[in-house]
Amino acid sequence: MVESLQRRLPQKVSTAPADLETHGRDEGYPAHHPPIAVVYAEGLEDIQATLAWAREHRIPVVPFGAGTSIEGHVIPQGPALSLDLSRMNRVLEVRPEDFLAVVEPGVTRKTLNEALKGTGLFFPVDPGADASLGGMAATNASGTTTVRYGGMRQNVLALQVVLANGEVLELGRGVRKTSAGYDLKDLFIGSEGTLGIITRLTLKLHPIPEHIHTLRVFFENLTDTAQAAYAVMASGLPVARLELVDEIGIKAINRYLGRNYPEKPVLFLEFHSSTRAALEAESRLALELMQEAGAISIDAAHTQEERTAQWEARHQSYWALVNLFPGKEYLSTDTAVPISKMPDLVTYSNRLLRELGLTGNILGHVGDGNFHTLVVCEPGDPRAEEFSLRLVEHTLALGGTCTGEHGVGLRKKKYLPKEHGPALAWMRQIKQLFDPHNLLNPGKIFD
Amino acid sequence: MVESLQRRLPQKVSTAPADLETHGRDEGYPAHHPPIAVVYAEGLEDIQATLAWAREHRIPVVPFGAGTSIEGHVIPQGPALSLDLSRMNRVLEVRPEDFLAVVEPGVTRKTLNEALKGTGLFFPVDPGADASLGGMAATNASGTTTVRYGGMRQNVLALQVVLANGEVLELGRGVRKTSAGYDLKDLFIGSEGTLGIITRLTLKLHPIPEHIHTLRVFFENLTDTAQAAYAVMASGLPVARLELVDEIGIKAINRYLGRNYPEKPVLFLEFHSSTRAALEAESRLALELMQEAGAISIDAAHTQEERTAQWEARHQSYWALVNLFPGKEYLSTDTAVPISKMPDLVTYSNRLLRELGLTGNILGHVGDGNFHTLVVCEPGDPRAEEFSLRLVEHTLALGGTCTGEHGVGLRKKKYLPKEHGPALAWMRQIKQLFDPHNLLNPGKIFD
Repeated sequence: MVESLQRRLPQKVSTAPADLETHGRDEGYPAHHPPIAVVYAEGLEDIQATLAWAREHRIPVVPFGAGTSIEGHVIPQGPALSLDLSRMNRVLEVRPEDFLAVVEPGVTRKTLNEALKGTGLFFPVDPGADASLGGMAATNASGTTTVRYGGMRQNVLALQVVLANGEVLELGRGVRKTSAGYDLKDLFIGSEGTLGIITRLTLKLHPIPEHIHTLRVFFENLTDTAQAAYAVMASGLPVARLELVDEIGIKAINRYLGRNYPEKPVLFLEFHSSTRAALEAESRLALELMQEAGAISIDAAHTQEERTAQWEARHQSYWALVNLFPGKEYLSTDTAVPISKMPDLVTYSNRLLRELGLTGNILGHVGDGNFHTLVVCEPGDPRAEEFSLRLVEHTLALGGTCTGEHGVGLRKKKYLPKEHGPALAWMRQIKQLFDPHNLLNPGKIFD
Repeated sequence: MVESLQRRLPQKVSTAPADLETHGRDEGYPAHHPPIAVVYAEGLEDIQATLAWAREHRIPVVPFGAGTSIEGHVIPQGPALSLDLSRMNRVLEVRPEDFLAVVEPGVTRKTLNEALKGTGLFFPVDPGADASLGGMAATNASGTTTVRYGGMRQNVLALQVVLANGEVLELGRGVRKTSAGYDLKDLFIGSEGTLGIITRLTLKLHPIPEHIHTLRVFFENLTDTAQAAYAVMASGLPVARLELVDEIGIKAINRYLGRNYPEKPVLFLEFHSSTRAALEAESRLALELMQEAGAISIDAAHTQEERTAQWEARHQSYWALVNLFPGKEYLSTDTAVPISKMPDLVTYSNRLLRELGLTGNILGHVGDGNFHTLVVCEPGDPRAEEFSLRLVEHTLALGGTCTGEHGVGLRKKKYLPKEHGPALAWMRQIKQLFDPHNLLNPGKIFD
């Protein structure tokens, strides 16, 4: 059956086992379902041709960027095409004078920041992985710098999308604000490939901070750590990153990276200051706040190398844990709560791990109230899912959300009825409106 | 016919001529169409009862907040009920520890900031008028501080809405980020009362800056002024307001407020710094940048009184112009363009005013690329609409939007087909999905 598509798109449709294999999994979800073929789209027309074929044969299409999801977003749920966008990797336009760039969806965030060298600007959204920008928009990704610069929704000004029927829409404009009608741009951001295929993004850029100051601050316990984070948020300091790692995480980092950190909960902080004198004043204030909050150890990074070492420790903490427990499976939760509820939820999470006899660590974007518990277990251990379920239930009771940045994918679908109530049925109706034959990434967000 | 509604909602439905009169106009659109009755809703049930009556009699409902729109949003387009939400004016919850507040839609932004006194926090969105927060969400309002804090979309975390069918939805959560399904919250923000009635808002609060520094900087011409604004945006300085007023605006301010400013284009700037030392350093850098950019006169406000006088001048500039030309009509454009296109558009606007023999002035949120041309003319002068049309066409050609913050209402409907292309038809389909009988604010955004 795919031969007709191969004829339509010569050299672009693969059924090679290696291609099917890599397009049937992601970086975190424990399932593997290869597609029937992988289409390597090189432009809008290829995507439209793929969708026309999909409509004709009623075979769904699953968009694929860099494959760095951990929620099963790119894993087909039945016979489906994987629509690989990695060849659409051109930075189409950089306009420093407008603080914006226009890119194809397969450009990764690191590639974009390389292309911005020399402009004095950068694209701030940093989910850790070198994800594709199309995929990051599809899941409304965010990361360590979101506390200052916002996530994808705040940094994507406009999108070009192709609908299931092949129509091309331009959503939003390359301006910093607009009130012209319904906000379809933000409807498509976070829609996880279920409403349309993102084919072009107009992104907001920011001036590279000239003066950066970072701190690594250890505390006796998690409650002190969370309260220190609150003090920073309330201070008005130009905090650009505010990350928490618990003691198990630190233990893993020490082993994996050969560090010698105190095995206590820690805050990693970064401030972006406008001038050298402002930096010094802000650095002093930050130190005072941390001391008042009961810090037991404070290290300031003074050089780029020290900063890199600090953030390497934070960025590598997932792999550090994986390394600490080889051969195991990992489940990452992604709950976000109102900020004051963080200590409660972190405590609950630790107690629940113990209660279920599970090992795991906590790390997260504490300035946003968003943290991850990485649960380590044997493949298929039902306690991991039980942990996730109970943690999410407690999160929702605290007014939180089941996913702050990873998206719903396959794993979090079951939490949405409780999180959204009657609004979920309206989301389904919007899905039905844009994709009546359920051809776009079916089985994600909704069943 | 309204008697049956009056029986259902005793003391809450008025047909008094004075009520009908005030609910048939707004603060800027040159039309007056009184509703058949005004419902003063005091809670969710009143709104549901009103909508049930509206469905039964196929009489539309026009939500009404503070009536400060200038685009005709609250003006009925045929026999309709005006649904006045000003009695739903309770601040339901202030949670400083979570940086959030929960309010009813009739609370105005000034009332909320009064209620926040003593918390160290404030709600930053400031459109000038003391608008209701429900109305501000409905139009995705923004204002002078948006360059730093964002507009309504960035500062509304969650909404409760009632749909045309009476169903109550909770959209979004009181958290700083979520990736859990479709973003219906942002679909309703900016929907101008056409998709549902906003009945509760969860708002993001910010720490009140302890150290504020303002500048008033005059330039020889508009091009220099716009370039200076760009230099500030690129500097990484913590700019919190960045406003431009042209020489006609300054002339009007001088006359209206008895000031003695140079009659030249001016930037009003405000910086929010974290410490006294940071403020001093940032203030020095700002001064240097302004001098390099060719400033001909710089005044720094050192006290709260001086700051208030400065911002009064900016905030009163609309009324200053009205005062300069008594008995005239005013049309305010609201175009926003990519930042580098500002000088082009400002120049175009000035030339077009001269070409059409019109008087007007320019003021705007130059950090966001958004500015208003206030056109003064005799009532009914067709040149005002011609001016608006041509300015918007040029704006769209530059990649801009017809409305940065005022919304579409009645006046800007005609520009949407060009701005959105095929996406507009999908907006209509979403309208049809949520409001199949076109009972919610019909004739706004779409015909």
